[in-house]
Amino acid sequence: MMLLRSNIASMQGYVPGYQPEDISSWIKLNTNENPYPPSPKVREAILAEMGDDGASLRTYPSASSQRLREAASELYGFDPSWIIMANGSDELLNNLIRACASEGDEVGYVHPSYSYYATLSEIQGAKVRTFGLTEDFRIAGFPDRYQGRVFFLTTPNAPLGFSFPLSYVEEIARSCQGLLVIDEAYADFADTNALELVRKYENVVVTRTFSKSYALAGMRLGLAIARPEIVAALDKIRDHYNLDRLAQASCIASLGDQEYFRQSCARIRETREWFSAGLRSIGFSLIPSQTNFVFASPPDRNGRRVYDALYSRKILVRHFSDPILAHGLRISIGTRQEMELTLAALAEIA
Amino acid sequence: MMLLRSNIASMQGYVPGYQPEDISSWIKLNTNENPYPPSPKVREAILAEMGDDGASLRTYPSASSQRLREAASELYGFDPSWIIMANGSDELLNNLIRACASEGDEVGYVHPSYSYYATLSEIQGAKVRTFGLTEDFRIAGFPDRYQGRVFFLTTPNAPLGFSFPLSYVEEIARSCQGLLVIDEAYADFADTNALELVRKYENVVVTRTFSKSYALAGMRLGLAIARPEIVAALDKIRDHYNLDRLAQASCIASLGDQEYFRQSCARIRETREWFSAGLRSIGFSLIPSQTNFVFASPPDRNGRRVYDALYSRKILVRHFSDPILAHGLRISIGTRQEMELTLAALAEIA
Repeated sequence: MMLLRSNIASMQGYVPGYQPEDISSWIKLNTNENPYPPSPKVREAILAEMGDDGASLRTYPSASSQRLREAASELYGFDPSWIIMANGSDELLNNLIRACASEGDEVGYVHPSYSYYATLSEIQGAKVRTFGLTEDFRIAGFPDRYQGRVFFLTTPNAPLGFSFPLSYVEEIARSCQGLLVIDEAYADFADTNALELVRKYENVVVTRTFSKSYALAGMRLGLAIARPEIVAALDKIRDHYNLDRLAQASCIASLGDQEYFRQSCARIRETREWFSAGLRSIGFSLIPSQTNFVFASPPDRNGRRVYDALYSRKILVRHFSDPILAHGLRISIGTRQEMELTLAALAEIA
Repeated sequence: MMLLRSNIASMQGYVPGYQPEDISSWIKLNTNENPYPPSPKVREAILAEMGDDGASLRTYPSASSQRLREAASELYGFDPSWIIMANGSDELLNNLIRACASEGDEVGYVHPSYSYYATLSEIQGAKVRTFGLTEDFRIAGFPDRYQGRVFFLTTPNAPLGFSFPLSYVEEIARSCQGLLVIDEAYADFADTNALELVRKYENVVVTRTFSKSYALAGMRLGLAIARPEIVAALDKIRDHYNLDRLAQASCIASLGDQEYFRQSCARIRETREWFSAGLRSIGFSLIPSQTNFVFASPPDRNGRRVYDALYSRKILVRHFSDPILAHGLRISIGTRQEMELTLAALAEIA
């Protein structure tokens, strides 16, 4: 007997963005991390949780993460029963597929966006259907009644950085007969978000991550907002102790420091606008960004050449070999100083 | 269209052991936590990882947890390619089912043991088959050729505390046509373990947790040792950043302090033997334990009565309403002082 399921044996694993060992010698703009530390209250909360001898770590954490749900409830204005916390939003994407799609069922998403949706669908044994984008950034050929069990809509889009207008997202929600998962990993850097659609449509889920705007990629934290029936299903599927004690403490502390959060996001948006203008001034074409990165193309539309030239200067950005993306680069927004150095390098290279 | 899969909509969620809010006012012996703090090196490692401002938390952790695999490799004498780290061993149990059992396939386990195997199988849509125990603690009616895709064998057993002899576990390994997962959550408190069977049989996986013997229940850490083909499959299925930075730091630090670990386990075994003798002297019958708990029955075989009487004295133990377990109690081994107080209370109650 083969020990492994055939879909698992034959699939490729997902390969996350490259993380150099000697991180401090790089300007690292390849995985959309926040250039600023998390709120200082995070470190304080971790110290308080550990105490003098780390003894609290010997006991199980809260299984429900109830205090985190309550903190998020206060911030977003949804009852805690509409909120679930997770070990990164990846956990939620995974469990949403498990909640809704059986083997052979269809899961859909936009290409380009987050290819991990495909990996998660393959693990489940679900079929994957992708939809391209039109030139004006709408979904090409999306049916009036989409019958897939789950559709993932990344907005703002990664790696392109644009947002779908809310009215358009609402059309998609109405077309979806199954679940519409609006992956808002970057929404804190955008002008709008789709939270109101969760109230309005029973098939809409919004997911968020703490990895970008809250600067907690290292702590693996995400949340979803959805109807209580969907939250209850996700609660059945998740590991019952999915968040460790220090992740829980970090989450509460960072949600509680909204002033720091707003300042950090505002700085990144400001730098983004400055950097975007600079890129244009040296001949790059770029998509107006609603995220903490920009997708930009050099005048000769040879993304790989520019990637290599930056790499040799110890500036790490993201290049995708996919033919529809190979002409450009995805560049995370770092500190102002990092972006000044990057712009100067690009002016030399381009 | 129903949004949820029918198996998810109809299933009950798993309910973990009760965690009282005012934990410091209880003698808490209900979830087999370690009564001693983790190694002091854990707290030091967390502080070092965070630095002065927590800035490291803004960047993604190692996706592979390679340094943890190497530390475990050194300890257990398996190549790192035979080792995978997880967010608690629950993650591994989950992903082993996903790796091997499709919808409708059979997953087996011994009852009584860890009922979460059933929950995980239900989530996958797999069929569950349970096998009871004979009076001399062998699996009742286990076939010569067991055709289930995965069989979970908890040894030492929880909640009963006995170990299956290694030669018997080896028989089971030979009978299993699919995967045999040997859940060794409590093996660090036992006289033997089954690691050599991983080398000998390609269908054998051993799982371990840091929640009990390493006193890190609050940090969610587990590992599995298996053939590289199985580890590779689990690597495809897991979230690519499954362990946060502080969990990774805790893991390396605790594996590195084996002297502390051995002392802590030895103290718990010593207290277990003392407590077991004390229980017998006041008329309880009990199963010799190879774990950090004992399963014991009062003279009147009314586990519930004794549970309630302990509860009213703010001593929390575990009682199972299942008819085959209701006659006894599962009592975690706390500090010597906690067990003295518990024994005194039981002497009054029984």
